Amino acid sequence: MATSPIRIAVDAMGGDYAPHEIVDGSVQGAREHGVGILLVGKPDDVERELKKHDTQGLSIEVVPASEVIEMGESPATGLRKKKDASIIVTAKCVKTGQAQGMVAAGSTGAAMASALLYVGRIDGVERPAIGVRLPSSTSTHCLLIDAGANADCTPEMLTQFAVMGNVFMHNVYNVEKPRVGLLNIGEEQGKGNAFAHTAFQLLEKDERFQFIGNVEGKELFNGSADVAVTDGFTGNVALKSAEGVMRMFGSVLKSQLKSSLRTKAGALLAEPALRGSMKEVDSEEFGGALLLGIKGICVISHGGSRARGIKNAIRVAKEAILADVLGKISNQIQEGIEIHDHS
Amino acid sequence: MATSPIRIAVDAMGGDYAPHEIVDGSVQGAREHGVGILLVGKPDDVERELKKHDTQGLSIEVVPASEVIEMGESPATGLRKKKDASIIVTAKCVKTGQAQGMVAAGSTGAAMASALLYVGRIDGVERPAIGVRLPSSTSTHCLLIDAGANADCTPEMLTQFAVMGNVFMHNVYNVEKPRVGLLNIGEEQGKGNAFAHTAFQLLEKDERFQFIGNVEGKELFNGSADVAVTDGFTGNVALKSAEGVMRMFGSVLKSQLKSSLRTKAGALLAEPALRGSMKEVDSEEFGGALLLGIKGICVISHGGSRARGIKNAIRVAKEAILADVLGKISNQIQEGIEIHDHS
Repeated sequence: MATSPIRIAVDAMGGDYAPHEIVDGSVQGAREHGVGILLVGKPDDVERELKKHDTQGLSIEVVPASEVIEMGESPATGLRKKKDASIIVTAKCVKTGQAQGMVAAGSTGAAMASALLYVGRIDGVERPAIGVRLPSSTSTHCLLIDAGANADCTPEMLTQFAVMGNVFMHNVYNVEKPRVGLLNIGEEQGKGNAFAHTAFQLLEKDERFQFIGNVEGKELFNGSADVAVTDGFTGNVALKSAEGVMRMFGSVLKSQLKSSLRTKAGALLAEPALRGSMKEVDSEEFGGALLLGIKGICVISHGGSRARGIKNAIRVAKEAILADVLGKISNQIQEGIEIHDHS
Repeated sequence: MATSPIRIAVDAMGGDYAPHEIVDGSVQGAREHGVGILLVGKPDDVERELKKHDTQGLSIEVVPASEVIEMGESPATGLRKKKDASIIVTAKCVKTGQAQGMVAAGSTGAAMASALLYVGRIDGVERPAIGVRLPSSTSTHCLLIDAGANADCTPEMLTQFAVMGNVFMHNVYNVEKPRVGLLNIGEEQGKGNAFAHTAFQLLEKDERFQFIGNVEGKELFNGSADVAVTDGFTGNVALKSAEGVMRMFGSVLKSQLKSSLRTKAGALLAEPALRGSMKEVDSEEFGGALLLGIKGICVISHGGSRARGIKNAIRVAKEAILADVLGKISNQIQEGIEIHDHS
């Protein structure tokens, strides 16, 4: 296989199952998606894992980084004290152009801060935001943006989130004309708090995307919208509440299935369906969260990512790079600024 | 059975299955919980349903109301145009002292507005709030307050929500010392938006309840807190996102279980466990939402409530009345006002 022009830097030390699952997923990603991989981390650890795989013909390079920011560690302190942390070196690979994208499964805060500090924002983007593609009962998945990067937002920021989400869903997931909604607590215009009222008005008159009005929390998972914009506080609460209730239901179901011989037998037979259902709603299937608005594609996988999650994150990064998501976001953000200046 | 001194007004015309399931649940509630019931609605409709049941020895009275505010109708318009609406007459039963509490399964907006307009706030309560007792993977359930009554809140309001939630969980659900948390997007102090920072500081120094710090969305369903306070916008998004993801998972699981003969057989055997699990997370089991801060106990059941939901709502109302939740909320709110005045 020829060396691909697309190169993605992967933080090999980040996540609950680093480095072995990360390296495994990177090797799979390099093979299946034909991209070059820069594996960033402690060389001995990474090399040892790499030896377990057949990497012949793959473009995989180890980039040394001597430190690691741990999951529980404060991102601010970690970034200040550990200048040679794997996540920083990963971001620097993007900054220098060695890679066009990065994938990290460690602390979301550290990945976000590294990307912001070392890769930097796209000109005109006020605040980069996290987009998460949610599971769905239909074939249409909704990108929730901002899912937690910015606790305090202005209504104006939501129009930029809409632009970025729209470009991403159109170009990476081939949604012809993404339906962009505002996450709110009622469907009719006029619902919600003062922030939502103002955001609604701004989104409604913006011509860079198709605004379909308010979407409620329950519509995030049923294919009603392709993009749901919100501030990072509300978005994160929505995401974590959904995660929490799913975990709760899983644990209730498990204990109920164990409650009798009959249900145990049923569970055994129904196992493919139970596993299939969990897989459908599994965040690893969706290739992780995106940090949009950064001058490089940045995919942040779940901390508990296994090889499959990393492989999918690499696929998402590759597709975003191929589709020039960054260039398109940049153009539309500039367009918004020009319209704003002229109005 | 002697006539009970506790009387609860039930809107017989509200909800998707009114009046038959509402009347059924009311008869069951009167019998099982030994309370008097005022069934409010169109006399012919209500009497016809009542005749289907053995009501001998029960204290059930029909209170006439000629109009109904429909589920899709704007509460504001409905209340203005239909002065003899069943939900208004239900609230008036509480206002006049004919009943100490009310149960309604129709439009939440109309029930809330009627309670506010016709029953009124407890002195000193700035904003009544909706409390919803969430399903849980443990035996401890969390009361989410405000779950949607006030889209715009001040941080100060959250201390009153905490007082009301604390009194309710202690007195109706016998939680010795409720753990009151602030719904936020991280566990450590200092997380969240500006609103959450201020609310944290106010909650921390308030001595009317035990504040345990921030709770995340995923902790709402795992027994980490007994009360989670938040503004009505965030609370409603959390609630509806959780509902949405559960519905999505249910639909995915259903289609997966139907996908092969093997999984169909498994589903048949596992049926008691599947049904049991759904029951555990079913809002009807929890007796509905509470509107706290009103001069009367007000339980708002799910629009899709069946007889069981209404019976449970009657139980919750009865227990809140017996425990003098209103008197206790009133005392603690006054206490807060006095402390505030002296500081």
